[in-house]
Amino acid sequence: MKAERRMVTIGEISLRSDYTLGHGVLLSEHAESERQLTLYVGAGEFVAIAKEKGLAESKRPLTHETYLGILEKLDIDFLRVEIFAMRENTYYAKIVFRRLGEEHMIDSRPSDAIALALNRKIPVLVNEDLLRPVVSEADVKEYQTFIKQAQFKPE
Amino acid sequence: MKAERRMVTIGEISLRSDYTLGHGVLLSEHAESERQLTLYVGAGEFVAIAKEKGLAESKRPLTHETYLGILEKLDIDFLRVEIFAMRENTYYAKIVFRRLGEEHMIDSRPSDAIALALNRKIPVLVNEDLLRPVVSEADVKEYQTFIKQAQFKPE
Repeated sequence: MKAERRMVTIGEISLRSDYTLGHGVLLSEHAESERQLTLYVGAGEFVAIAKEKGLAESKRPLTHETYLGILEKLDIDFLRVEIFAMRENTYYAKIVFRRLGEEHMIDSRPSDAIALALNRKIPVLVNEDLLRPVVSEADVKEYQTFIKQAQFKPE
Repeated sequence: MKAERRMVTIGEISLRSDYTLGHGVLLSEHAESERQLTLYVGAGEFVAIAKEKGLAESKRPLTHETYLGILEKLDIDFLRVEIFAMRENTYYAKIVFRRLGEEHMIDSRPSDAIALALNRKIPVLVNEDLLRPVVSEADVKEYQTFIKQAQFKPE
């Protein structure tokens, strides 16, 4: 029997670039959530998501915009995207769409799924098990102080 | 009256990365052509084209592969891509496809058009006016020697 996975609807998608960690996409239920999923994505995927959020511009269509332009002419409804698993440090997502009354899904990287969801204004769902507690600046400072003061006794 | 543009069918697509110039995609009629079009593309677009040529791998689907996966389920025939103009240092391309007997085209960056063409094994056409003479290593050396030896007489 397959266990029921609880999927959480994402209400807040924010972006953060860090010189050492790279381009992060932060997903949470809402702005004050205490749990989030942080995805690290490539530069191109980061720009695609930033553009969908109105934070970046490009004179020419990006890859997903070109393909969504083709799909616009076809009878297809995008329903939702789901980030459902993480295996070997890789997150897995799927795009769910309907055509001629039938539901289909296709394998996707989370970054592509998020850019599509923002473009088509459809929900982003995340497996609850993938959410992690948000670590505040204060938490980090406290941890660093603890580490400095810790005494390690040799056996 | 609109002038007729001669479109050349590309038979050779090669890749070259240069630390200062970036990622280049070289298009020519055939391997021995004396004219070519060099496009500089982003890192993600370069990987997409390299993967289509079997020169790169990725465990997860790239953006164009995800969308082509969706389009596979729909009645759509990709016919050809055309790189037809350059304005303000930006090259313009279009993707031509057929659906229900009707031909459509959509605006695209050349890099997306090339990755799609390689994936779908359809022709890449380039406006002949965009091709430039191939400059050989010997040409560059000769030019450098000429510059060094040149005598400039003040008037």
